[in-house]
Amino acid sequence: MSSYFRPNVEAMKGHTPSHYLKPGSPSIKLNSNENPYPPSPTIRAVLQNLDLEYLRRYPDANANELRQAIAAVLQIPLDWIIVGNGCDELLHVVARACAEGKRQVVYPTPTYMLYPLLTEIQPADRIEVADPADGHLPIESLVAANGAVTFITAPNSPFGHGVAIAELRELAARLTGVLVIDEAYVDFAEETALPLVQEFENVIILRTLSKGYSLAGLRLGFGIAQPQLLQGLLKVKDTYNIDAIAALVGAAAMRDQTYKDTCVAKVKASRTKLAQDLQHLAFRVWNSQTNFLLVEPPQKNAEQIFLALREQDIWIRYFHQPGLKDKLRITIGTNEQNQTLWEGLRQWRNI
Amino acid sequence: MSSYFRPNVEAMKGHTPSHYLKPGSPSIKLNSNENPYPPSPTIRAVLQNLDLEYLRRYPDANANELRQAIAAVLQIPLDWIIVGNGCDELLHVVARACAEGKRQVVYPTPTYMLYPLLTEIQPADRIEVADPADGHLPIESLVAANGAVTFITAPNSPFGHGVAIAELRELAARLTGVLVIDEAYVDFAEETALPLVQEFENVIILRTLSKGYSLAGLRLGFGIAQPQLLQGLLKVKDTYNIDAIAALVGAAAMRDQTYKDTCVAKVKASRTKLAQDLQHLAFRVWNSQTNFLLVEPPQKNAEQIFLALREQDIWIRYFHQPGLKDKLRITIGTNEQNQTLWEGLRQWRNI
Repeated sequence: MSSYFRPNVEAMKGHTPSHYLKPGSPSIKLNSNENPYPPSPTIRAVLQNLDLEYLRRYPDANANELRQAIAAVLQIPLDWIIVGNGCDELLHVVARACAEGKRQVVYPTPTYMLYPLLTEIQPADRIEVADPADGHLPIESLVAANGAVTFITAPNSPFGHGVAIAELRELAARLTGVLVIDEAYVDFAEETALPLVQEFENVIILRTLSKGYSLAGLRLGFGIAQPQLLQGLLKVKDTYNIDAIAALVGAAAMRDQTYKDTCVAKVKASRTKLAQDLQHLAFRVWNSQTNFLLVEPPQKNAEQIFLALREQDIWIRYFHQPGLKDKLRITIGTNEQNQTLWEGLRQWRNI
Repeated sequence: MSSYFRPNVEAMKGHTPSHYLKPGSPSIKLNSNENPYPPSPTIRAVLQNLDLEYLRRYPDANANELRQAIAAVLQIPLDWIIVGNGCDELLHVVARACAEGKRQVVYPTPTYMLYPLLTEIQPADRIEVADPADGHLPIESLVAANGAVTFITAPNSPFGHGVAIAELRELAARLTGVLVIDEAYVDFAEETALPLVQEFENVIILRTLSKGYSLAGLRLGFGIAQPQLLQGLLKVKDTYNIDAIAALVGAAAMRDQTYKDTCVAKVKASRTKLAQDLQHLAFRVWNSQTNFLLVEPPQKNAEQIFLALREQDIWIRYFHQPGLKDKLRITIGTNEQNQTLWEGLRQWRNI
């Protein structure tokens, strides 16, 4: 045997996770689109009162308590919900169930870096369609490519704008493969594509508890689709993919919609203020329906600013990618964090 | 497109998880090889004092705190350790990285039901080698098959006996693919194959915190191998596969070896007693280095006994599988649970 690994895996470069900043450090961390506010205070009681029997025993493979909490909030039946160890696991599951070779994966670029990685793992051919960056989907190109799987981030990432449900509906109707609508940032948006799962058997909506619910550390995502589509995905999912604590904590967070809504409202208000403040510094600021802003500094010196801020222990995101090299992605922090960032940007914008 | 799914996924029957018994029910649950004793009491403090910042933020993709705790206990370097969302995830990862088509998967049967399932998902050809059930590995057949991946459970499951390290060493030396030594039950055994990872670059040892550490609900497993083998596996692993609470709780459990050893000693003593008691009822009892016993009732009426006990809310395991149809698998419970079970078996052995 020439290698222990499959040829496609042997050929992969692999992915180096971004630098880990341990909680408790004084860094201003605006590089991972985490929510600046802590998760629901109801979680504290769940952790303190946890019956350790939930740890001793294997968990519920169906994560029914968590799915029931989701079903109650979204007013959808239980068997329309699949839960994952983060949305990332569900993206892996969709690729594993649907894509290989000429059963290809299609998505607009630039986008989430996991999508191409999934095609390398399968392996599956991929067709990357240039995002027109005008707030609209490149529908004709996506339909022409007609992937076994099409990934659309809605709201868009990394630009941040909302995606019109009418465009998603047209895409769903014209594709013969699975349309994954990755709603990672939907909690900060004005619209959701959720009604489309009722209309189309080929649509799955993915959500996460990492953003609106401040639970990035818990690794919980979920998908909503018609039961027949989920049946196929369940075949390739790990049986016990959700641990017992995560299921209980996630359910408590879902049940506390009031708290989540309050945090989201604060983030959205801060987003408006930070966008205005950066426009006053002559930054170009993309319209955002997410908890981040994509911005372009007036001197187009994005990488220099990114590095200079990092020296000040202010972490934002820079992408070494076509179409993004003169831009920066900034997570919406608290007003105080945003102010510190703004002062840093003002100081460094002319370097 | 004829189906949303890959042909191999379309053809899969899928797996129905076993019936979930919620903690707090009065059932005698001896069907999943859970530890009858609660996890380390140090876990309580971890949960009560958890800094919620660990939930708000993305977790450490390298799970360094957990890996450091494992490294300290096993006295191995950090980069020889990979952690998974249960051992199951690591089994998926190995299959995904190494197996496809003629890069086949080999294992003795009967064995863990996940191994064939993994070959269906990839898909990869599989060669099932009949286990001689004499306590020895079918080395010549395994070497002749020479899989890209060979799975060996050591101690054996479902028979329960130990596997001689000399046999595993010979197998590792003669295979050109990856040898996965699944040590799920090693905490209850007299020997570990751990030294083999120093000797062979193609060996990975898998461990779990589900059995000895009483943390089946937490979904934590780990693998030990030379760093070069792990580099390939890391390419296909989810970046954030371990959630922040599981990493902290798991690390605390690993650091409390004294408690784990105490529980394991109790289980082993109960195993000896239950084996003797069942032999007095004329059951055939396989020698066990695990926390379960495989037994054969004198009338070979295993399925009837299984069903009769379930009526009494006593849950043991029956396999509708060749070679196991006249046998039962019984998890070692507390002495009190074992006594109740024994009375049930005595009552029903002649039905």
